[in-house]
Amino acid sequence: MNGPGDALAWGRDGLLPVVAQDERTGEVLMLAWADREALERTVETGFAHYFSRSRKALWKKGETSGNVQRVVEVRADCDGDALLYRVEQTGGACHEGYSGCFYRHLSGDAWAIDRRKVFNPAEVYPPDAARPATLDTLRGEPEE
Amino acid sequence: MNGPGDALAWGRDGLLPVVAQDERTGEVLMLAWADREALERTVETGFAHYFSRSRKALWKKGETSGNVQRVVEVRADCDGDALLYRVEQTGGACHEGYSGCFYRHLSGDAWAIDRRKVFNPAEVYPPDAARPATLDTLRGEPEE
Repeated sequence: MNGPGDALAWGRDGLLPVVAQDERTGEVLMLAWADREALERTVETGFAHYFSRSRKALWKKGETSGNVQRVVEVRADCDGDALLYRVEQTGGACHEGYSGCFYRHLSGDAWAIDRRKVFNPAEVYPPDAARPATLDTLRGEPEE
Repeated sequence: MNGPGDALAWGRDGLLPVVAQDERTGEVLMLAWADREALERTVETGFAHYFSRSRKALWKKGETSGNVQRVVEVRADCDGDALLYRVEQTGGACHEGYSGCFYRHLSGDAWAIDRRKVFNPAEVYPPDAARPATLDTLRGEPEE
């Protein structure tokens, strides 16, 4: 197969970290992961796709919530081991209801929230939807 | 030990990906990695520290080039497995001489450069300095 993935330095697990950035505001929305298929689907469809490490599956951002990301541009870093999706974000990127996932900043030793929610997660996710752990519920186990 | 690292979901390798963003321009400068020590040194000193996966060592950004990053803010994502450093970048962030490492965008199947260098790497790195591989020289092996 030939494609843009050929030049990249995929990790041993076949993944690369992907930064998603709002192309209008510049906000760093989230960090996720892509395998070759996710990158190919992103390029083919124009919508951000990722690989879920916890579910071990291809994942179209917004497939449940409707909060899709139209990808304006895909960028790669100097050594080809990270990607940047510049996107138009529908709704908010974060499953917690914020525009982006980095809604906490370090204040002393605490991670304090300094953003406001832009949507109500209860309105866009089904009640039984599997949702990732958040910082408040973490017990030190690796989570996605 | 108590500290901001306690709440984070460090990977099995003890690392988290860190996005560095220019706090003035919003440019995503680079993606690197931090262990607990790197985060602590960043918070203590106010300058970005990372963990080099290839050298397996703590690394102060700019220690060789002088292109340091003063960290204005440290942010964490919703599930505590990614960090964002918002920085004032001296010179440029990329060892190739660009303001940031994401100086290539996907154009068809090719990664095309659409940025101009802001400094000459030959002037800020010693001739014998070990420098990471770039996309042009990659042979598919994971590199940092």
